[in-house]
Amino acid sequence: MRRKLNFWCMTMPLMVALGFFSTGCGQCEVEPPPKVVVDQFPSWNEGVSKQTIKDFVVRVTDPASSEFVPEAERIAVFDNDGTLWSEQPAYFQLLFAIDRVKVLAPEHPEWKTNQPFKAVLDGDMEALAAGGEHGLLELVMATHGGMTTVEFEAIVRNWLATAKHPTTGRPYTEMVYQPMLEVLDYLRANGFKTFIVSGGGIEFMRPWTEEIYGIPPEQVVGSSIKTAFEMRDDGPVLVRLPELDFIDDKEGKPVGINSHIGRRPIAAFGNSDGDLQMLQWTAAGDGPSFCLYVHHTDADREWAYDRGSHIGGLDKGLDEAAARGWTVVDMKNDWRIVYPWN
Amino acid sequence: MRRKLNFWCMTMPLMVALGFFSTGCGQCEVEPPPKVVVDQFPSWNEGVSKQTIKDFVVRVTDPASSEFVPEAERIAVFDNDGTLWSEQPAYFQLLFAIDRVKVLAPEHPEWKTNQPFKAVLDGDMEALAAGGEHGLLELVMATHGGMTTVEFEAIVRNWLATAKHPTTGRPYTEMVYQPMLEVLDYLRANGFKTFIVSGGGIEFMRPWTEEIYGIPPEQVVGSSIKTAFEMRDDGPVLVRLPELDFIDDKEGKPVGINSHIGRRPIAAFGNSDGDLQMLQWTAAGDGPSFCLYVHHTDADREWAYDRGSHIGGLDKGLDEAAARGWTVVDMKNDWRIVYPWN
Repeated sequence: MRRKLNFWCMTMPLMVALGFFSTGCGQCEVEPPPKVVVDQFPSWNEGVSKQTIKDFVVRVTDPASSEFVPEAERIAVFDNDGTLWSEQPAYFQLLFAIDRVKVLAPEHPEWKTNQPFKAVLDGDMEALAAGGEHGLLELVMATHGGMTTVEFEAIVRNWLATAKHPTTGRPYTEMVYQPMLEVLDYLRANGFKTFIVSGGGIEFMRPWTEEIYGIPPEQVVGSSIKTAFEMRDDGPVLVRLPELDFIDDKEGKPVGINSHIGRRPIAAFGNSDGDLQMLQWTAAGDGPSFCLYVHHTDADREWAYDRGSHIGGLDKGLDEAAARGWTVVDMKNDWRIVYPWN
Repeated sequence: MRRKLNFWCMTMPLMVALGFFSTGCGQCEVEPPPKVVVDQFPSWNEGVSKQTIKDFVVRVTDPASSEFVPEAERIAVFDNDGTLWSEQPAYFQLLFAIDRVKVLAPEHPEWKTNQPFKAVLDGDMEALAAGGEHGLLELVMATHGGMTTVEFEAIVRNWLATAKHPTTGRPYTEMVYQPMLEVLDYLRANGFKTFIVSGGGIEFMRPWTEEIYGIPPEQVVGSSIKTAFEMRDDGPVLVRLPELDFIDDKEGKPVGINSHIGRRPIAAFGNSDGDLQMLQWTAAGDGPSFCLYVHHTDADREWAYDRGSHIGGLDKGLDEAAARGWTVVDMKNDWRIVYPWN
């Protein structure tokens, strides 16, 4: 067993012998030091948003508090698109699907004339939008299905390593909100288990959430397509089928939380009406709870949008947040910086 | 900061002054002691089974080993029925459903004449078995659906607190295998994350797995029925619908693992052909892996059955285990005790 020599302990005998002290050194630490509550929000401006997060964490982690929550029950759930990373000019996963259509097009000559693929290949976003949800679904199935889970993971990793955001030119993994990374760290330092609960594809997120957010694959909940076990000559695989399994959005979020986590969160973070039911479900627990909306108010450094002005919308959510006293982050004023590279 | 007084550090100055030693006490610990590899299998007899488990864990946890696996990837999956607790004379969840039919019968006069309910109320197990899978499914839907998730959890907790196993008279939660509890503890002490991956109902297991196995709800994978989010006057609920969602058995087990865990396990423990694909999936990883079957060979202390002689069967599994060198636990000879109360 390796021992670390302690300066005080080594010199103390001499000092005691010389009459400087009359008792033990007092420096010996046999037990680990008590846990220090971390308070590091360098990217947040002082204000109500930052303060309410900290106040909540202090209340539920102080064993003397009437609202103390045991560590095992400190579950915090985070939406991803627009809450942990940007979602403009479109969900990044849609931009991934578009890039994949271009890569796969040589194998699919019929895409030159068939929608929604023609729209993608022509760069005609209006025609793509005109195809509506059905068109998007076709796009997702053609680009996310038909390979094994291992193959899909490699495709996602490769895309993230090379693709660049259309307006900032940054890798997508740099389009994450530094203030939210600090919230994730702060919660974990205080015994919370952090989960992503996103409308995005569960297997699209898992290859990079651990490195970027510190959230391991088993703590990622998302939408999914079906997979099937298949025994091949060189061993078993899971094949991704072009068939929807679960949509982890709106009413689906509490369902996904119940399926994957199996207990009710005590803290929930979102940015759109797609997150409303997740926040309602969190707030309906017996004990203390914390709900927060990220409000996109910063047209200069990020984007500014809310009520009905984007795909998720933040309409009912803003009303309910006001009525129930949930925290609404004003991105422009609450965040000193937005991205890690600001 | 509370300091723990250290005997050696306190007496050392005196001893040094008296000339017993000429240097520091050497007892001061400023850094936590290095992790000790726990080796506690008191309920296992010495033998190949115990040794192969220990050997595998040493290989993947020793940083100097060529087969070292980082802690985040040390995922171990356990079947439940017949692997962690007994499954005789029938799956305990079926016995739960039967008890529920009796409780609910007064509200359902039609059950007196309709199968499979009549069979249950008459105690006619042959008629129940004759109804086959369809009959069982009807039984499950009638007893597991139609209430909220919170209500169902309370029903399960109450049943477990009062019901007794039909042959031993013990609470079902005491029908767990002490040697397997030791394996769970041993793996966790060595940085493994332990999961249940069972054909049983995910919400039937979650209310008690943390207390009994040390496995939290978010690490339980199982079969499920659908749930729906519903906003009621007194707040949101999740209603359990009488509709199958997912069967976590056979080919379903790797699918469930992929959906809930999102990475491949390196260790898998089962007891029937229903676990075969889970073991195959685990063994097909790039790195080291460990697969184990619990073989029910002890008619005196537990039950003795394998090839085709029970609902899961252990036929292909025994062949594949022999061919691939998987560990097969001989319950009669490998386990010094079976239940904690033996």
